Amino acid sequence: MNRNQLFENIRKKESFLCVGLDTDPLKIPQHLLEEEDPVFEFNRLIIDATARYVVAYKPNLAFYEGNGIPGLISLQKTASYIHEKYPDIFLIADAKRGDIGNTSSLYARAFFREWNYDAVTVAPYMGADSVKPFLGYEGKWVILLALTSNSGADDFQYHTDEGERLFEKVLRVSQEWGSADSMMYVVGATRAQMLEEIREIVPDHFLLIPGVGAQGGSLAEVVKYGINSQCGLLVNSSRAIIFADSSRSFDRVAAEKAREVQTEMSRYLKEYSLI
Amino acid sequence: MNRNQLFENIRKKESFLCVGLDTDPLKIPQHLLEEEDPVFEFNRLIIDATARYVVAYKPNLAFYEGNGIPGLISLQKTASYIHEKYPDIFLIADAKRGDIGNTSSLYARAFFREWNYDAVTVAPYMGADSVKPFLGYEGKWVILLALTSNSGADDFQYHTDEGERLFEKVLRVSQEWGSADSMMYVVGATRAQMLEEIREIVPDHFLLIPGVGAQGGSLAEVVKYGINSQCGLLVNSSRAIIFADSSRSFDRVAAEKAREVQTEMSRYLKEYSLI
Repeated sequence: MNRNQLFENIRKKESFLCVGLDTDPLKIPQHLLEEEDPVFEFNRLIIDATARYVVAYKPNLAFYEGNGIPGLISLQKTASYIHEKYPDIFLIADAKRGDIGNTSSLYARAFFREWNYDAVTVAPYMGADSVKPFLGYEGKWVILLALTSNSGADDFQYHTDEGERLFEKVLRVSQEWGSADSMMYVVGATRAQMLEEIREIVPDHFLLIPGVGAQGGSLAEVVKYGINSQCGLLVNSSRAIIFADSSRSFDRVAAEKAREVQTEMSRYLKEYSLI
Repeated sequence: MNRNQLFENIRKKESFLCVGLDTDPLKIPQHLLEEEDPVFEFNRLIIDATARYVVAYKPNLAFYEGNGIPGLISLQKTASYIHEKYPDIFLIADAKRGDIGNTSSLYARAFFREWNYDAVTVAPYMGADSVKPFLGYEGKWVILLALTSNSGADDFQYHTDEGERLFEKVLRVSQEWGSADSMMYVVGATRAQMLEEIREIVPDHFLLIPGVGAQGGSLAEVVKYGINSQCGLLVNSSRAIIFADSSRSFDRVAAEKAREVQTEMSRYLKEYSLI
């Protein structure tokens, strides 16, 4: 999916919501545990309930790897289900991979060819040759970690060399590797004020913003400091939507939560004359 | 496996060689492709041929994820085979994971409980809460990326704040999270001279040293600058051993290559009075 198509989907759905399919098997509603594949069944119901309100889904691979091979089969079924039933959904593998060149090439092939994701999150620590192999795929995206939403972000991401913080260097240097048509950046919503400075370095790029919801970030702040002429934002919410309820109506409640966020997003898109 | 046990295995085998099971399906000898699971069959033969010369194996997950579910089944069979037949081998998942706290907890459970590895490589970019969840497992290890062997290491790892380079900060700060009994560091052999400075920061820790062999690092240099009173080194070689030959005798040639490295290592261990 290219940048214009993504923006068109945002306009069509009046939403820039990404739902994180962080399906912790321990949190799945009791009645689904009798199913043959409770994780897939949970995802399928969440997806059918929320798809009209979202432009992207983002399964975090840890939640599936944690169950070994059966977990990865649940994930594969989930990805296929989304591709077949909702082909205009942007599908992100939240994998935070990154390795030496020949190894990153294999990860890229895995995520883009074998599993057919639209995008994969990549960690920048190992530099250019760990990221570039992900960039050679038409219509596919690298989402590079820049400033993350967790407390540990303070440990290294603010390390400052001649006035330039590490996350700023990541934003600057990585633009030599790929353009706003093939790269996005992760910027945590818990750092919303930083978005103003970040937009000076990457005015055109899409940003994937986790941390709204359970982690406490504010959507209004994110929009205020981060929105651009093509929206330029994918705002992720995981637990606050998919685990909002654990009764038999969990999917209806998830849909309601997603709709609330989408309604707020629609208002912002109008306010900024993007729809 | 604790630090003393690892050192005892090094003394017993007169080796600190780690063989990287980076089994690229495209490089497997032709005659194995008729097998039901060529990747596992290749690994099994490499392991049986080389186990007497090595203290650790390190499959890189990218090479298995690249084949989807069947690839991960090959990996699982390989890990089980090593555990059952060679229980004194230290088994490293080269996965370079790292995510927010609740997510890293799941990766930790996956690698240490579900897959039963002794150690997993972790990327430091996201800081304390992305690494600590891997540290709560008795006898298990985090191997944190510090200074990697690839050219991209120059992009961010030397970012210098008040005289302290990023990789040095990673070494310093991470010692607040775990001790030399639960953490090791990745330091590329292509940066061997840096080992002298690194040993000033982490004198006691084991270091996992990739980059000897195909990537061009020198074992003599690594030992000169990196060895400590418990050896403190696991030196990895992948392609130069496992893909040294592609004939029907590939395993015999791999054993010969491993034996050559082990012989050199034995000489160093004697030179430094460790055996």
